[in-house]
Amino acid sequence: MRLFTAGTAVLGGPAACYPVDFVQKIKQAKKQGQLLIGVDRGSLTCLQAGISPDLAVGDFDSMTKTELGQVEQAVSELRYSKPEKDLTDSELMLQAAMVDYQLDRLLILGGTGGRLDHFLVNLFMVNKPAFRPFAEKISLLDQQNLVKFYLPGRHLLVAKSGYKYLGITPLQGVQGLTIQGAKYELPSFTANYPLCFSSNEFVSGQTVNLSFKQGLVAAILSHD
Amino acid sequence: MRLFTAGTAVLGGPAACYPVDFVQKIKQAKKQGQLLIGVDRGSLTCLQAGISPDLAVGDFDSMTKTELGQVEQAVSELRYSKPEKDLTDSELMLQAAMVDYQLDRLLILGGTGGRLDHFLVNLFMVNKPAFRPFAEKISLLDQQNLVKFYLPGRHLLVAKSGYKYLGITPLQGVQGLTIQGAKYELPSFTANYPLCFSSNEFVSGQTVNLSFKQGLVAAILSHD
Repeated sequence: MRLFTAGTAVLGGPAACYPVDFVQKIKQAKKQGQLLIGVDRGSLTCLQAGISPDLAVGDFDSMTKTELGQVEQAVSELRYSKPEKDLTDSELMLQAAMVDYQLDRLLILGGTGGRLDHFLVNLFMVNKPAFRPFAEKISLLDQQNLVKFYLPGRHLLVAKSGYKYLGITPLQGVQGLTIQGAKYELPSFTANYPLCFSSNEFVSGQTVNLSFKQGLVAAILSHD
Repeated sequence: MRLFTAGTAVLGGPAACYPVDFVQKIKQAKKQGQLLIGVDRGSLTCLQAGISPDLAVGDFDSMTKTELGQVEQAVSELRYSKPEKDLTDSELMLQAAMVDYQLDRLLILGGTGGRLDHFLVNLFMVNKPAFRPFAEKISLLDQQNLVKFYLPGRHLLVAKSGYKYLGITPLQGVQGLTIQGAKYELPSFTANYPLCFSSNEFVSGQTVNLSFKQGLVAAILSHD
């Protein structure tokens, strides 16, 4: 039997970009019996909110000895990474969450804002063959955006209260990308590079059909 | 004779993500005789800083009538876009700057932060065949990041004071990506999807050699 089916990971992105109900979100995750993972400085962020992660991953090089001591005392499972590693801290987290813990779904907080190389690691990691199979189980959430990932096939996208805009973003070459039922429709689109169809919208009471034959596509729900 | 050789574009991203010396930057751009472009709400941001853009582009739908009136009065050249257009406001700006004004270089401010679909339009627009030839003339700057774009070939990357980290990010499939002279070297790497080699660093007093045979690569200089 698996210990956890769902998880929430807190990364070290700037607090200004966290969802406004961040503390409530991680409290609820714990209450629901989710696996709470702190990544690098994100472990400390959880502790400062009064909640201990179940697992902490990182090289922790941005933390003082005292801060690391706090994390080591509060968290039962720690995985130390090395700076010259092949996988980034986010990717090590993903490996732990999806391969070792075999989670059915994972919500990532603190993965946006600040350094763009950090964000792009988090956005593109599902492009890697090792993580691609888990793409549809993963989402990123911040103050203004909810990002979901889709593998080839037909998908039904449902509007979410508070999110006015829908951005459809192939994260690699895409074949036959079709958007139906949205404010702006897209007939079969093919390209060998990523781009972003931004500022689309759900039509009231209607779902959006997203389909494509090859590639990996992110759907970004956002508000101003 | 061209009227302008360099330009600065101000997009409508959140002010918190603007470079800290934003006002000084656009004042200096005007002083140097650069083309100053305001994109949508970015036009207003320039006016509020006491500087009139030479050109304003956008659908201006996020602005009140009074705000739009201010822009219309202060800016001599306005280009109105339509919401259901094929090109986004950023892309229309790029077309004006690179095709019509034939700028040699363009610095984009306000293109990051906030809505991720907006940011990804700005990051991926150089992937489009119409804009690809201009990639090396364009850069994005925000509070923590400087993004430059490279076409296939050999490139010499020079460290920039204040920027500790170097992230190398193919924005589409890449062939033979090699990083030499940095803290972490990368031998010839090939993939048919984007990813990000994050948290690399310049070695003191050394330049970095970046080369690849096919694709389009972004170099992100950043600091914490």
